[in-house]
Amino acid sequence: MTIWLNGEWLEGDLAGLDVADRGLLLGDGLFETLRYSDGRVRRLDAHEQRLRTSCRALDLTCPLDRISLEPLIAELVARAGLTDAAIRLTLTAGCGERGLARTGADEPSCLISAAPLAPPPAALSLASTGAQRAGNSFAARHKTLSYIDNVMARREARRAGADMALLLDTQGRLSGADCANLFWHRDGRLFTPALACAVLPGTARAAIIAALDVEQGEFGPDSLDAADCVFVTNALMGAVAVSRIDGKPAGAGQAVPEAVRAVLD
Amino acid sequence: MTIWLNGEWLEGDLAGLDVADRGLLLGDGLFETLRYSDGRVRRLDAHEQRLRTSCRALDLTCPLDRISLEPLIAELVARAGLTDAAIRLTLTAGCGERGLARTGADEPSCLISAAPLAPPPAALSLASTGAQRAGNSFAARHKTLSYIDNVMARREARRAGADMALLLDTQGRLSGADCANLFWHRDGRLFTPALACAVLPGTARAAIIAALDVEQGEFGPDSLDAADCVFVTNALMGAVAVSRIDGKPAGAGQAVPEAVRAVLD
Repeated sequence: MTIWLNGEWLEGDLAGLDVADRGLLLGDGLFETLRYSDGRVRRLDAHEQRLRTSCRALDLTCPLDRISLEPLIAELVARAGLTDAAIRLTLTAGCGERGLARTGADEPSCLISAAPLAPPPAALSLASTGAQRAGNSFAARHKTLSYIDNVMARREARRAGADMALLLDTQGRLSGADCANLFWHRDGRLFTPALACAVLPGTARAAIIAALDVEQGEFGPDSLDAADCVFVTNALMGAVAVSRIDGKPAGAGQAVPEAVRAVLD
Repeated sequence: MTIWLNGEWLEGDLAGLDVADRGLLLGDGLFETLRYSDGRVRRLDAHEQRLRTSCRALDLTCPLDRISLEPLIAELVARAGLTDAAIRLTLTAGCGERGLARTGADEPSCLISAAPLAPPPAALSLASTGAQRAGNSFAARHKTLSYIDNVMARREARRAGADMALLLDTQGRLSGADCANLFWHRDGRLFTPALACAVLPGTARAAIIAALDVEQGEFGPDSLDAADCVFVTNALMGAVAVSRIDGKPAGAGQAVPEAVRAVLD
């Protein structure tokens, strides 16, 4: 694997990350997943804006003040010999003294890697799980390195025979999928859970909301029953139809609206 | 720093941890913090039992099936030139394919390090924060590598001038401190939040409950008002009195009961 780590180009997996890094020890950091296709990073501005916002919320120094992401990613993709790529930027709080406080952790670490971009699936199945997102959890509201609850929700969904977990917030309202935002379409209208429902503010979600008329609100799981189409979105996949939820057909099973596809293409 | 990583003794911080490790990328793993003093690991059995239990809950292969922790830690402490030490065992899900599922991640990674053991503080102050632990969150109930919500609660507490954050669960009940369990003493009785209140099952907590009569229950924050003494416990510090909560004296400010100290010494 070709990676960029704090200003150096490295080959191979054992790239000398400090084992005292708070990203590893405490999940103290952030990440972004970006899609590189047709010779450019898709929605780079939105990713950069989210990273800046999350850095402020987590009191982390934003690497975008020091690096120019666009040419860096282009060089990374070229060095990796890829055309289309899934890019991951990992930002950690760096190394400091033992313990929860960031004492002595003055140098954040930034790692960028590229992997082949897999084609999106034609459709996905979801399973309800016991996971519930807390609205004031940093892990729920930001793309932090503390992703264990999503990892475990995914495992529970897979055991149930589904592709992805459907997540509720702690008040039982629809929140999203384990690595994607949730939308549905009914009678010509688009719906998605409001950010207050412990939603991770996805870049694809924001693009759809900016371009189309979307009702953001607080919805129970039964809101999906009458949908024409349920779909999930993220930066890598775009919009993917949900075919089944908990083993039953999801809504009326119509295709993702063309208007949504047009926004994300 | 001297560390033990997957069977090898290494010196220096850049110990070649794989940058594709799920512990770093997703907080997918567990840790234990152990106290080595007077020539032995304190409550080793309790730490091993908790690690086994959490490995089962997180579907991780437990390293204790392959390594004998006691002599390994003794050698680590000796190699590091320490007498008393804070030991950290970090277990990650290892490296696999991109994404939430552990596809191809067949080799967990285990890292053990030793640091000088700091003397416990005479007393601590707590601050309430906006953090709320969800009872069914793996991050709340296990010592996972996904610790961002505790890190951020600590930062909020420090900004408020306190040493540590007091955490509630999502139902507003007392849960614990950001890196310690919470107890209080009133009229000759000991109290602590029940595990159902999104409590991390600490080894010091378990030792106190096993040795003394402790009422475990669901308590609101005002339960602390009438306490003779409020104190927090963890493996490294033992029991430390809480002097102030949100700037006001915590309970009547009496010392940690001798019976508690005797259990943890």
